[in-house]
Amino acid sequence: MADKTALVISAHSADFVWRCGGAIALHAARGYDVTVACLSYGERGESAKLWKNEGMTLDRVKTERRAEAENAAEALGVADIQFFDLGDYPLDLDRDAKFRIVDLIRKVQPAFMMSHSKYDPYNTDHMYATEIALETRMIAQAWGHNPGEKVLGAPQLYLFEPHQTEQMGWKPDVFLDISPVWEKKRAAIECMKGQEHLWAYYTNVAENRGNHFRRNSGGQSGGRAATHAEGFQSVFPRCVDEL
Amino acid sequence: MADKTALVISAHSADFVWRCGGAIALHAARGYDVTVACLSYGERGESAKLWKNEGMTLDRVKTERRAEAENAAEALGVADIQFFDLGDYPLDLDRDAKFRIVDLIRKVQPAFMMSHSKYDPYNTDHMYATEIALETRMIAQAWGHNPGEKVLGAPQLYLFEPHQTEQMGWKPDVFLDISPVWEKKRAAIECMKGQEHLWAYYTNVAENRGNHFRRNSGGQSGGRAATHAEGFQSVFPRCVDEL
Amino acid sequence: MADKTALVISAHSADFVWRCGGAIALHAARGYDVTVACLSYGERGESAKLWKNEGMTLDRVKTERRAEAENAAEALGVADIQFFDLGDYPLDLDRDAKFRIVDLIRKVQPAFMMSHSKYDPYNTDHMYATEIALETRMIAQAWGHNPGEKVLGAPQLYLFEPHQTEQMGWKPDVFLDISPVWEKKRAAIECMKGQEHLWAYYTNVAENRGNHFRRNSGGQSGGRAATHAEGFQSVFPRCVDEL
Amino acid sequence: MADKTALVISAHSADFVWRCGGAIALHAARGYDVTVACLSYGERGESAKLWKNEGMTLDRVKTERRAEAENAAEALGVADIQFFDLGDYPLDLDRDAKFRIVDLIRKVQPAFMMSHSKYDPYNTDHMYATEIALETRMIAQAWGHNPGEKVLGAPQLYLFEPHQTEQMGWKPDVFLDISPVWEKKRAAIECMKGQEHLWAYYTNVAENRGNHFRRNSGGQSGGRAATHAEGFQSVFPRCVDEL
Amino acid sequence: MADKTALVISAHSADFVWRCGGAIALHAARGYDVTVACLSYGERGESAKLWKNEGMTLDRVKTERRAEAENAAEALGVADIQFFDLGDYPLDLDRDAKFRIVDLIRKVQPAFMMSHSKYDPYNTDHMYATEIALETRMIAQAWGHNPGEKVLGAPQLYLFEPHQTEQMGWKPDVFLDISPVWEKKRAAIECMKGQEHLWAYYTNVAENRGNHFRRNSGGQSGGRAATHAEGFQSVFPRCVDEL
Amino acid sequence: MADKTALVISAHSADFVWRCGGAIALHAARGYDVTVACLSYGERGESAKLWKNEGMTLDRVKTERRAEAENAAEALGVADIQFFDLGDYPLDLDRDAKFRIVDLIRKVQPAFMMSHSKYDPYNTDHMYATEIALETRMIAQAWGHNPGEKVLGAPQLYLFEPHQTEQMGWKPDVFLDISPVWEKKRAAIECMKGQEHLWAYYTNVAENRGNHFRRNSGGQSGGRAATHAEGFQSVFPRCVDEL
Repeated sequence: MADKTALVISAHSADFVWRCGGAIALHAARGYDVTVACLSYGERGESAKLWKNEGMTLDRVKTERRAEAENAAEALGVADIQFFDLGDYPLDLDRDAKFRIVDLIRKVQPAFMMSHSKYDPYNTDHMYATEIALETRMIAQAWGHNPGEKVLGAPQLYLFEPHQTEQMGWKPDVFLDISPVWEKKRAAIECMKGQEHLWAYYTNVAENRGNHFRRNSGGQSGGRAATHAEGFQSVFPRCVDEL
Repeated sequence: MADKTALVISAHSADFVWRCGGAIALHAARGYDVTVACLSYGERGESAKLWKNEGMTLDRVKTERRAEAENAAEALGVADIQFFDLGDYPLDLDRDAKFRIVDLIRKVQPAFMMSHSKYDPYNTDHMYATEIALETRMIAQAWGHNPGEKVLGAPQLYLFEPHQTEQMGWKPDVFLDISPVWEKKRAAIECMKGQEHLWAYYTNVAENRGNHFRRNSGGQSGGRAATHAEGFQSVFPRCVDEL
Repeated sequence: MADKTALVISAHSADFVWRCGGAIALHAARGYDVTVACLSYGERGESAKLWKNEGMTLDRVKTERRAEAENAAEALGVADIQFFDLGDYPLDLDRDAKFRIVDLIRKVQPAFMMSHSKYDPYNTDHMYATEIALETRMIAQAWGHNPGEKVLGAPQLYLFEPHQTEQMGWKPDVFLDISPVWEKKRAAIECMKGQEHLWAYYTNVAENRGNHFRRNSGGQSGGRAATHAEGFQSVFPRCVDEL
Repeated sequence: MADKTALVISAHSADFVWRCGGAIALHAARGYDVTVACLSYGERGESAKLWKNEGMTLDRVKTERRAEAENAAEALGVADIQFFDLGDYPLDLDRDAKFRIVDLIRKVQPAFMMSHSKYDPYNTDHMYATEIALETRMIAQAWGHNPGEKVLGAPQLYLFEPHQTEQMGWKPDVFLDISPVWEKKRAAIECMKGQEHLWAYYTNVAENRGNHFRRNSGGQSGGRAATHAEGFQSVFPRCVDEL
Repeated sequence: MADKTALVISAHSADFVWRCGGAIALHAARGYDVTVACLSYGERGESAKLWKNEGMTLDRVKTERRAEAENAAEALGVADIQFFDLGDYPLDLDRDAKFRIVDLIRKVQPAFMMSHSKYDPYNTDHMYATEIALETRMIAQAWGHNPGEKVLGAPQLYLFEPHQTEQMGWKPDVFLDISPVWEKKRAAIECMKGQEHLWAYYTNVAENRGNHFRRNSGGQSGGRAATHAEGFQSVFPRCVDEL
Repeated sequence: MADKTALVISAHSADFVWRCGGAIALHAARGYDVTVACLSYGERGESAKLWKNEGMTLDRVKTERRAEAENAAEALGVADIQFFDLGDYPLDLDRDAKFRIVDLIRKVQPAFMMSHSKYDPYNTDHMYATEIALETRMIAQAWGHNPGEKVLGAPQLYLFEPHQTEQMGWKPDVFLDISPVWEKKRAAIECMKGQEHLWAYYTNVAENRGNHFRRNSGGQSGGRAATHAEGFQSVFPRCVDEL
C-alpha cells in the first residue's frame, strides 16, 4: 500500500491555495502528509499589490509572500512547505535545481502529485512547472539516479484548476468533495492579503464545482449534496479492481 | 449507495465479449448483475464465416450468432442478455426502439454503463451505438418520461476498447485488472466460433493491457503483477472523497 | 450595414436565459430586435420540479414553462419569442420543421445567431440544436430555396456557454460586458421558478466571467472594471478593417 | 492486385471538379476507370447565378447543372458519371438510397474512394456526404449484404480539399503532382459557367499546392519542379512494403 | 483607450513581409506606429539564394537581408524596425535577450502583437519565436520587473499565416481586408530579392484570403468585394460591448 | 532518386529495437544503409535490472548497454550505429551536440528519418528526442550552415510506436509488413537481456499490428496475409504521382 503522502508542485507561492487548497485540507484531515513545493515566490509577477507600495524591494516582497504562504499552509494542515526560490517571470530550472526537486520527490514518495495545466498562454511559468513535474517524476523513477535510494513508483499527476480553464485546454476528470473542509480553504484564501480581488472568484469556483459534483453524482436522482468541490485533470490512467 | 448493476450496450452480439468480457466476469464475481443489450446480431456485417457457407440465410445467421452470444454470456456470468434485433450495417433506431432501450436502462438502474468508442470510421454502427447510449441515458434521466418510474441517476459511461484504438481516437483512462477472471474471458472468446481469427488478437490485447496495468500501478517499484487487464475511456468526470 | 437583429436558437425554453440573457438585454438596449426560437419547452427533460407535483400532465408543464419563458423574455427586452413545440428528450426535426426554422431565419435576417455548444454528452438535444442551426443557416443561404425570398448573408453563429464548459470542449473567444444589464438578466433568471437551484450558479458564472473580462481587457494595467460578463465561442472567422 | 478503378462521391454535381479534377484526369490518363457519383445537382444551394435569372425552375437548374458536370467529366476523362438526384440543402438519404450507393461501390470495386472533409460548418451537405461514404463503404464490406455479390475490400477514402481548409479542420497528408494534366483540370473548371467567380480561386489553389509539392519533395535541395498539385487527407492507414 | 501602436515579432527578417505586410501597411495608414522586431536575419536558414553565390560570408548575408527588410519596412510604412541579431537555425534566446525584448514591448506598449503559429515542424525557429512572444509578454506584465516602468496591459497576440497552414494546425479566426494597401504589400514583397520564388505564392494567398473575406462577410448576399485579405489566429479572447 | 539510406534517432540505446527493428531489418534487406544514432545509453533510466546488481557503476552500465545495442544492430543489419553518450533522465543537448547530429544527418543524407512520438508524459526524453530530430533536420537544410556541404532535402520523419500509444496521442498512418524479417527482429529483441520483461510485449505488438495490416489491406476480401507489422506516424505529407 502506498504511503499516505502527497506532493504539490506550485510555480508561485500562492498557487496551491486557490487551486488545490481543498484537496490539501481534505487529505490532511484523512491522515495524509502533504508537502508543498513552491518553486518561486511569484515575487516579480504575482505581487502587483505589494509593488504598488513605495520603496518596495524584491526581498521584502519575497518575505511577505513567504509569510502569506506559510500562514495558508498552516490553515490547510500542510505537513511541510518548501521554498526553492528559483525566480519567476520567467521560472527556469537548471540541472541542479531539477535534482533538488527529485530529492524531494524521493523523500516524500507521494501517493499522488499535483501541478498546473499543460498549457497556459497567459502564464508560461505555469506550464513550465508542469513540464518540470513530469521530468522530475521521470528522473525519480530512474534506478541509476543516486543508486541505493528508494526509487519512485508511479504516482498520479493531477493538474489542478487554472484560471480561465477553457483557454488552457484543461478538462477535469475528477471532482473532489471539499465541503467538509471548505472553511479551512476559505481561511487559507484569506491569508492571501495581496490578492484580495481573487477571494470571491475562487469562492464562486468552489461553489460551482460543488454543483458539478452534485450533477455528476446523480443530480436530482441521487446526487450528493456537496456544497463545494475542486476539479482535477489526471495525466495518467488509473489502475483499479472495480469500476 | 448505487445498486450493484451494470449495463453493456453492444452494437453487435459479439462486441461485449472481446471488449469488456473481463469487466463483466469480474463484476459478476463481485456480485453485480450485469445486463447486456445486443442491438443487433451483427448478422449482415460481422458474420463473414457463416455467410461463406452454402445456402446460408439471415435467420440461420441470427440463430447461430445468438447462440454464440448466449454461450459467451453464460461463461462470463451475465445476469441478463437481451437481443433487440434492430438490424446491422447499418444499425438505425427509430423513436420506439430508443424508448425500449430507455425502458431497459430504467429497469436495470445501472451503477455504470458501457458502449463503443466515440469515433469509428471502419464501423459506423459502433459510433452510432454510443450516440444511442448517450441519448437514451439522457431520456432515462428525464422526469417527464413515463412519469412515476424511477428516474436514472448519473451512471458513468465507459467506452470499451475498439479494434485499432489509435484510429478511433480512443484513449483509456482506467485499467481494470482482470487477471482473476482471465480464464472466463478466454472461455467466452472461444464461444465465438465464427471469429476464430480474433482469439489470439484479443489475448494479446489482454496481456499487453496487463503490462500497462503493471506500469501504471508502479512498474518495477511497487507495481501490481497483473497478467491481464482491460482498458476503458470514461465519458464523464468522477466524483470522489479521496484522490 | 446589417440590420440590428439577432436570432437565438434554444433547444429548450429556458436555455436562452442562463446562457445569453445578458447578450439579449444588452443588444435590445442598443436597439436590436432579438428573436428567440424555443425548439421545445424542455417539458420532459428539464422540468423535474414540476413533475414532482401530484397529477402533473405534459400540457400543464408546457403551459408553465411557456409562461416562465415569456416572462423572462419580457424582462430581457426580447422582441419576439417563438415556441416551435417540437418535443424534447429527444429533440428531433423533420424536413418541414427545419423549413419552418429557415422561414424564421429569413424573416429575421439576423446580424448574428446564437445556439448551443458543438458537443454535449449530458444533453444530446443541445448539440442537436446546434447541428440544426448550422443546417438551417445553410438552407437559408440557398438561392433555390423559395426563390424570390431575400437570401441570408453570412451571420456569425455564437455558441453560448454550456453547463460544465470543459466537458463540452467549449472555449470562449469573446467576452461581452453585461454589467449595464445585469439586473435585467438576474430578473429574467428569477422568472425560472422551476430551476431555482441554478440562480446562484449562473450568478457566479456571470461574476467570474466579469473577472475574465477584466483580465483580458488589461487586468491591473488598464483593464475595464466590468462586474458581469458572458462568454461566447464563434463558429466562423470575423471580417474586419482594423485589428 | 486491385483493379484500376476509383470512385468519387460528390455531394453536389460540381464538387468533383474543383476538389479532385486533377486526380481524376491523372488517374484516367494512367488507365484508371474513374466513376463519379453526384448525390445531388446542388440545384438549390450551389446555383445562385442560375436562380438570378427570371423564371428559373428547379428542373431547368438541374438540367443546366447536369450538362455542366457531364462536360467537365468528359474533359477529365471520367469513365462514368452517375446522378442520384437526391436533393440538396439539405442532402438526406434513406435506406434505399444508401443501398443504391452500395450497389455502385460494389460494381466499381474501387481501388480508392474520395469524398468531402469530415467537418464543414458552412455546408452540412458536405460532411453528410462523407458520413454516407463511410457508412456505404462499410455496408459494401458486409458479407450478409446481398450475399453472393463480390464483397468490397478496404479501399482508402481520400478527403479532397474543401473551401477554407482551416475552418474544416482538414489536413492534407498527400500531395499529388497534377502538372501533366493541369490543362485538363482548367478546361473542366471552365465548364462550370455558373461559378466563374471560383475559376481563379482554384487555379491559385493548384499553384500553391504545387509549391507545397516542391517543398515537401525536397525544396531547393532536390525538390520536384511540379507546377500544380492537389492535396488529400487519408482516413485510413496505408499498408506498405517499403517506407 | 489603448495607444495606436503594434508590435510584430518576426523570427527571421523577412517573415513580417509575407505574413502580415498588409496588416502593417493598413494600420500604418490608419495612424498606428508599427514596430517590427526581427530576432534574426534568417541568415543561415532562409537565404539559400545568397549562399549559392561564390565566396558568400555570414556578414554579407546579414547585410543583404537587413537591407531587404529595411526596404520592405519602408514600403509598408513601418515606424521602427529593430534587428536583434540573435542567430537562426536554431534561434535561441538567453535571459538577457528575453529582457531586451521585454524592454521593447514596454516601450512600444502595443495595442496588439503579432508572431508565428504555435506549431511548425518544418521550422522550429518559428514556433520558438511564438513561445518567446508569450513569455516576454508575460514578463512585461510583471509589476516586479523593473519596478517603476509602465506595466504592459493585455494586448492580443495574433498568429500570422504560416506556410502550409494545415500542417501547422493554424486556423484563422479573423480576416483583415487589405485591398486598400495591396499595392504596398506587393511592393514590399518585391523587396525580397532573395526569395522571388515566393512572390506569386503570397499573391495567390492574398487573393484567396480575399475570397474568404467575401464569403464570410456575406458571400453573394451582401458580402464585401474585398480583393485581398490576410488571416490571423487570436490567442486570447476578445472583450467587447457589442457582438 | 534519393539514396537508399535511413537514419534512426533513438533517445536511449534500446529504443530502436522495440520500435522499428522490423523496419530496419526490412530496409537493410532491400539494400538500404540504415544508421542508428543513440543519443544516450539509457544508462540511468532504462537499466533497472543492471542497477539491481551489487556494485554497479555508470560506466559498467553503459558498457553493457552498448554491447546489447551493438548486438541488436548486427542482428538487424544496421550499417552504422553511433553512440553520442549525451546522458539520460534527462537528456539535454547543447548547441554543439545538436551540430554533431546535424553532421551525421548531412553525412547520411537519409531518404527517411525515424524518431519518437511527439508527446510522452512518462518519458520526457522521448519527446525531447523528437524535438531534436525536427530541429536538427531544419539546421541540416540550412544553406548557411557549413556552406559547401551538401544540404539536406526533405526526408520524411516517421514517429515509431511508443509504449502505451493512446497516452502519447500517437496515431499510425502507415503499416509496414515485417513478416519476412520477423525472425531478425525477434533475435534483436533477445539481445536486450536487461529488459526481458518486454520481449513478449513487443511480440504481441508485432502480431497485432499484423492483424491491422491484414485488415487495412482488404481484410477477408483480398487482405494480405501478413503475420507481423510495425506502425508509423508521418510528420510530413507525402508527394506522389499516383494515389
